[in-house]
Amino acid sequence: MSYQAPLKDILFVMNELAGLSEVHALPGCEDATPDTAEAVLEENAKFCSGVVAPLNWPSDKEPSFWHDGQVTTSAGFKEAFKAYGEAGWQGVQHPTAFGGQGLPKLLATPCIEMLNSASISFALVALLSDGAIEALLTAGSEQQKATYLENLVSGKWTGTMNLTEPQAGSDLAAVRTRAVPQGDGTYKVFGTKIFITYGEHDLAENIVHLVLARTPDAPAGVKGISLFIVPKFLVNADGSLGERNDAHCVSIEHKLGIKASPTAVLQFGDHGGAVGTLVGEENRGLEYMFIMMNAARFGVGLQGIGLAERAYQQAVTFARERVQSRDLAGSAGPVAIIHHPDVRRMLMAMRSQTEAARALAYVGAAISDVAHHHPDAAIRAESLAVYEYLVPVIKGWSTEMSQDVARDGVQVHGGMGFIEETGAAQHYRDAKILTIYEGTTAIQANDLVGRKTVRDGGAVAKIILAQVRTTEAQLAALSGADFQAIARQLSTGGTALEAVVDYVVANARTDVKAVFAGSVLYVKLAGIVLGGWQMARAAIVAQQRLGEGSGDAAFYKAKIATARFFADHILSQASGLRSAIIDGSAGVLALEADQF
Amino acid sequence: MSYQAPLKDILFVMNELAGLSEVHALPGCEDATPDTAEAVLEENAKFCSGVVAPLNWPSDKEPSFWHDGQVTTSAGFKEAFKAYGEAGWQGVQHPTAFGGQGLPKLLATPCIEMLNSASISFALVALLSDGAIEALLTAGSEQQKATYLENLVSGKWTGTMNLTEPQAGSDLAAVRTRAVPQGDGTYKVFGTKIFITYGEHDLAENIVHLVLARTPDAPAGVKGISLFIVPKFLVNADGSLGERNDAHCVSIEHKLGIKASPTAVLQFGDHGGAVGTLVGEENRGLEYMFIMMNAARFGVGLQGIGLAERAYQQAVTFARERVQSRDLAGSAGPVAIIHHPDVRRMLMAMRSQTEAARALAYVGAAISDVAHHHPDAAIRAESLAVYEYLVPVIKGWSTEMSQDVARDGVQVHGGMGFIEETGAAQHYRDAKILTIYEGTTAIQANDLVGRKTVRDGGAVAKIILAQVRTTEAQLAALSGADFQAIARQLSTGGTALEAVVDYVVANARTDVKAVFAGSVLYVKLAGIVLGGWQMARAAIVAQQRLGEGSGDAAFYKAKIATARFFADHILSQASGLRSAIIDGSAGVLALEADQF
Repeated sequence: MSYQAPLKDILFVMNELAGLSEVHALPGCEDATPDTAEAVLEENAKFCSGVVAPLNWPSDKEPSFWHDGQVTTSAGFKEAFKAYGEAGWQGVQHPTAFGGQGLPKLLATPCIEMLNSASISFALVALLSDGAIEALLTAGSEQQKATYLENLVSGKWTGTMNLTEPQAGSDLAAVRTRAVPQGDGTYKVFGTKIFITYGEHDLAENIVHLVLARTPDAPAGVKGISLFIVPKFLVNADGSLGERNDAHCVSIEHKLGIKASPTAVLQFGDHGGAVGTLVGEENRGLEYMFIMMNAARFGVGLQGIGLAERAYQQAVTFARERVQSRDLAGSAGPVAIIHHPDVRRMLMAMRSQTEAARALAYVGAAISDVAHHHPDAAIRAESLAVYEYLVPVIKGWSTEMSQDVARDGVQVHGGMGFIEETGAAQHYRDAKILTIYEGTTAIQANDLVGRKTVRDGGAVAKIILAQVRTTEAQLAALSGADFQAIARQLSTGGTALEAVVDYVVANARTDVKAVFAGSVLYVKLAGIVLGGWQMARAAIVAQQRLGEGSGDAAFYKAKIATARFFADHILSQASGLRSAIIDGSAGVLALEADQF
Repeated sequence: MSYQAPLKDILFVMNELAGLSEVHALPGCEDATPDTAEAVLEENAKFCSGVVAPLNWPSDKEPSFWHDGQVTTSAGFKEAFKAYGEAGWQGVQHPTAFGGQGLPKLLATPCIEMLNSASISFALVALLSDGAIEALLTAGSEQQKATYLENLVSGKWTGTMNLTEPQAGSDLAAVRTRAVPQGDGTYKVFGTKIFITYGEHDLAENIVHLVLARTPDAPAGVKGISLFIVPKFLVNADGSLGERNDAHCVSIEHKLGIKASPTAVLQFGDHGGAVGTLVGEENRGLEYMFIMMNAARFGVGLQGIGLAERAYQQAVTFARERVQSRDLAGSAGPVAIIHHPDVRRMLMAMRSQTEAARALAYVGAAISDVAHHHPDAAIRAESLAVYEYLVPVIKGWSTEMSQDVARDGVQVHGGMGFIEETGAAQHYRDAKILTIYEGTTAIQANDLVGRKTVRDGGAVAKIILAQVRTTEAQLAALSGADFQAIARQLSTGGTALEAVVDYVVANARTDVKAVFAGSVLYVKLAGIVLGGWQMARAAIVAQQRLGEGSGDAAFYKAKIATARFFADHILSQASGLRSAIIDGSAGVLALEADQF
């Protein structure tokens, strides 16, 4: 159950597909030289595989537990998180002004992937802190930044996001938590928040809760929500910790997976009111929260990729070691099951989807860096639009994909996979949260359809599709069955995605329910087409390197074979998805609620 | 978390698709009148929903446990199994000569489905007894039948299947357990068996282990395996229980799901040898075990259907009760989530696949009845061949489908789905075993390719496909968008399946690895095409009844809509599967083992 960071693929994707050298050339990204990148990743890989990965399975067996308002995390988490902060890993992508390393998102992205391969439960505390840091950087006052950021960036304190309430679920319009101004610039906060990841724990001296609440005169619905900082311990003027705030963890959940990550019910204000300060302006809380959420959604996409990689590695190890049944082509005795075609099919499905999702996410990260750092405002704007189109695809597809991969991972193990001690089942359990939190796949799909496709009439989608067509043209110039198959499937996939974008744009206003009946399938289609596009690009580069005789020939050959597999087995689903989206709404919507 | 048996659909499928009246007309099936069938099913439904279903979730929280060789089952199981036996449910399909009800498989099938909806963990003990009864009926001596059958049929005793050993997994050629003849007609059995479902428990007075072992001079491989009865307690000549046999449970597994069902490691012969008697002839054990396994495989297919139905009902209940977010078409306030299109899409996916798999399984059961009871030997033979083709499809597809359904079931619940107390997660965990035990999906696929397709040159597959074409012709005569869509997708699906059958037959001997690289996908393709065929048949009947103005119009309209959904969303995957099977082997097989 060990984890080896897939540095070879990570560096290939960063350098050859995501364009690390272009990112490095951006103003403010000068430190991210290829050499620095490699050194950072090697060091991070050591930490993730050496310190965090060994905690994953034991912490599932002995999860975090609650007693009398306190949460004790699983053995080893405290020491590992201390080391994480001290080594500067929490700060990789955050500004040097607050103690961070100020590296581009493209470099932070593989670090986050690797941490999640090591342990999703552990990585969550860091992910939530990243979100809180982003929100404060964007909307916090100078004083708030001075008070909180350095300690969040160093990992001395951690952050949380408090959105969900028992009656509200994903519907933030229904938020009821109240924030009453005290006349001194502070507010008293009253309410109950549920599903708060790392809402209470023993990993840090303080917990910085970012809480959505309504002020007394706020308008109804999402336009009346404000964002507040409610720290677990109040912070004195000199930065030292003050009184315990009236924000208490009354229980944690008993969950299917990510058991080491405490999911808290937090009670604000039961003993007089929790002291909070407003972030930014009143009634703009949702906007700020979306900053955290967009970063967090991208991060959850990486969780899917990280989990898929770990599940894949575990399945490969088992398939190499487990000897059972003769080879189909006729061996004298039993062989390792990796030689059986269906085991191989599952491993290739796991591998190819993980690589495709990784490539798409890293490319997205590089586009985000361009969007934030490029000197040309027009390029920044277009890049931002492309990145924002990709976020729900990366989150939605990578996480759904991770559940397919984890399921195959158990299946490769046969009966042993069903035994908890084997460890494959943990990934199957852990993966199930990824399509739910930070917005279910349906919520990603709402975002992709509404804000990312319909609002601009499909313009950004078409920009991306034009790039897919460019890759298709490059494929056409290459000979051999692999490239022909990849070209054929990518062409069909691109056409399917284009048809769906047109369908969504044409019908979203006139037949809204029909369009949303296929919205999750649109996320999936976009994922496999854009993931397939990246695999095609990877195969083209690999072929080029093989022609040059440079680099690791076995790696490049495997990349072409993996791209071929993805085309035949995953991209080939595009036509079915296209018809399910465009023709399939009648069947979705026909029944009355009482006919179910 | 209650369970309501879907009797309306069950009776529709039995009467209109599986042909209960034709089965009733078979010699030996005279008791199975439609009225009797309805009465039996209503009574069984009461038992399953009233007595067993309430045990499912509590027994997951407090599973069976082992102490000092004894296994205590979850609270309520003992009383429920006693009631099950006393009501005659174990005997539904078994001969009246041994105390059974002698009803056809078509009638036993919904009983098994309902029991599995109620609790898979509970149903397993009955399933294993069914298998043991079948094996003894076929291969047992008169004395063995007299000694064991009546108590197995009444549920006083239970049966087990002992195949797997630690070093052997699914590879029975590697079985090492020894059986040494004692010269008095008995054998002493020595060895370790693992993954023995209900290998030890407190539900019955005796446990009848059926054990695969080798006699001293047996040939190597699967041709040297014999089948033995090794009871937990020896049975005296007068039928009373004698000495405790040397077959002991040394531990049970800590599993992902079906936690109430004890999965035992059994140690035979550690204290001098476990006394066993040979079933049938030496070295024919595998053949007899296949009798149990074929029955058990069909039964596991029903487990998938039962689990899917339960997960669907639970998701529907939640989706009706959970109020969140406004309706897309614009409601004043939040609505029940069943009104949101993507929730509906998931519910329809769950519903349509469950109904399709149910229809295919029940049709299979009826064909099995024809195969066993029809007066015309040629019809019996052809029916048996069709049934045997269907078994790996029913097992493989229904169980894979159940994992999709259980996953959607959690997703419908959103964050609540991830909390164990909600109960949706249990189905997600339980479902994962179904594609593994009684032969993994890959083993079903080996069977479908080898014994069921290649051996007869695709002849049986073509017989079934001709019937699909007949349904297509009937669809063409019906007007309306629903029937056009169903006709189009069924035609594409049928053509895909036909192409794959031809590909498998043409290449299985010359390019065996390529064919097996797509064998699991062939199972899936066959499942969705034949399931889609049954849904098309159902829609045709529903349309006819609507035209006649007879029966429950809402039910018939829902059936047509569900068939339409299945066509657009599930059958539409056929083309992608076809190309993955026919073109996709290169990508599966390209990598060397060390390139993974």
